[in-house]
Amino acid sequence: MSSTDDIDALIEMMAKLPGLGPRSARRAVLHLIRKRALLLTPLADVMQTVAATARECLNCGNVGTTDVCDICTSNKRQNGELCVVEDVADLWAMERSGVFKGRYHVLGGTLSALDAVGPEELRIPRLIDRIDAEDVREVILALNATIDGQTTAHYIADQLEGSVTLTTLAQGVPIGGELDYLDDGTITAALRARKPV
Amino acid sequence: MSSTDDIDALIEMMAKLPGLGPRSARRAVLHLIRKRALLLTPLADVMQTVAATARECLNCGNVGTTDVCDICTSNKRQNGELCVVEDVADLWAMERSGVFKGRYHVLGGTLSALDAVGPEELRIPRLIDRIDAEDVREVILALNATIDGQTTAHYIADQLEGSVTLTTLAQGVPIGGELDYLDDGTITAALRARKPV
Repeated sequence: MSSTDDIDALIEMMAKLPGLGPRSARRAVLHLIRKRALLLTPLADVMQTVAATARECLNCGNVGTTDVCDICTSNKRQNGELCVVEDVADLWAMERSGVFKGRYHVLGGTLSALDAVGPEELRIPRLIDRIDAEDVREVILALNATIDGQTTAHYIADQLEGSVTLTTLAQGVPIGGELDYLDDGTITAALRARKPV
Repeated sequence: MSSTDDIDALIEMMAKLPGLGPRSARRAVLHLIRKRALLLTPLADVMQTVAATARECLNCGNVGTTDVCDICTSNKRQNGELCVVEDVADLWAMERSGVFKGRYHVLGGTLSALDAVGPEELRIPRLIDRIDAEDVREVILALNATIDGQTTAHYIADQLEGSVTLTTLAQGVPIGGELDYLDDGTITAALRARKPV
């Protein structure tokens, strides 16, 4: 056995992370080894802790270290507003904006006939249960503006029609966006939804 | 204490790795949490092992899990040829080419008056010791073709002059390189070092 087998294994595992390739994994591992007391040991410890404690919220699908997540149990969040997102990363993005004070429901993906992802796989039945159980008045469909995202949004809208107010995020020019760099679809959407000044 | 403090700490530590930023760290951590049994636990274990065992070779500065690295102790490597590189990443790059059969000496950086990096910090005294101790005939200066790298190469060449054969990597057009994308310096170097067909 070579004395660098563990280091090679570490590089190989790091290289499989999204956003890292073999070259950046080697750089990262060398950086970690150089500062092993300061970086590698604490990182390994935190990873052990997270591996042991992280779980999905049984209610909304968010990631946390308790069976029901902080947002679901917080009494500072408004009841009655439910924001439906595809993924935990989208929930985090919404939270960074700090503007939404209701609760979330994470689908965990989008409907896809090709990948055999149906409503059961996406926590859609649980969403329908929550609307009664939590007395939800408004469901905000904050799905990605992709074809899969919009297909899923339409399916959910069909299922919930009549029982709650359904809204979706506005489409238009992003803040700081330059028209010249935007695609035709965005410009069309922004023009159709134009507002009086 | 929030139930996501550990997850936030993990994201923050991952975001400090070279090649990762806050966004890619969040993606990587979510990916790891989703597959925690398959990825996160093994990764944390390997990190613990590497943190406990990784060290720099006392002889050449390479990274391994023994006091003297595999390359220094191998009897399959040729004695008498020493390849001087700036960094362990450069040693790994040379090893991937598989063409060099001698041994290495890792400087651990380049001379820099600004950052107060002198010959003592760069294992240059150890390099001079090794030339006598290991009966080295040829020293290949495989330093980066940057100003700092070339300054360091000149300094080492001055120190070793007369005692060994000194060579350096050839400069020219990279394999697969297109002239139109190369800088003037590379084209000048390639033209000056042109060879009969």
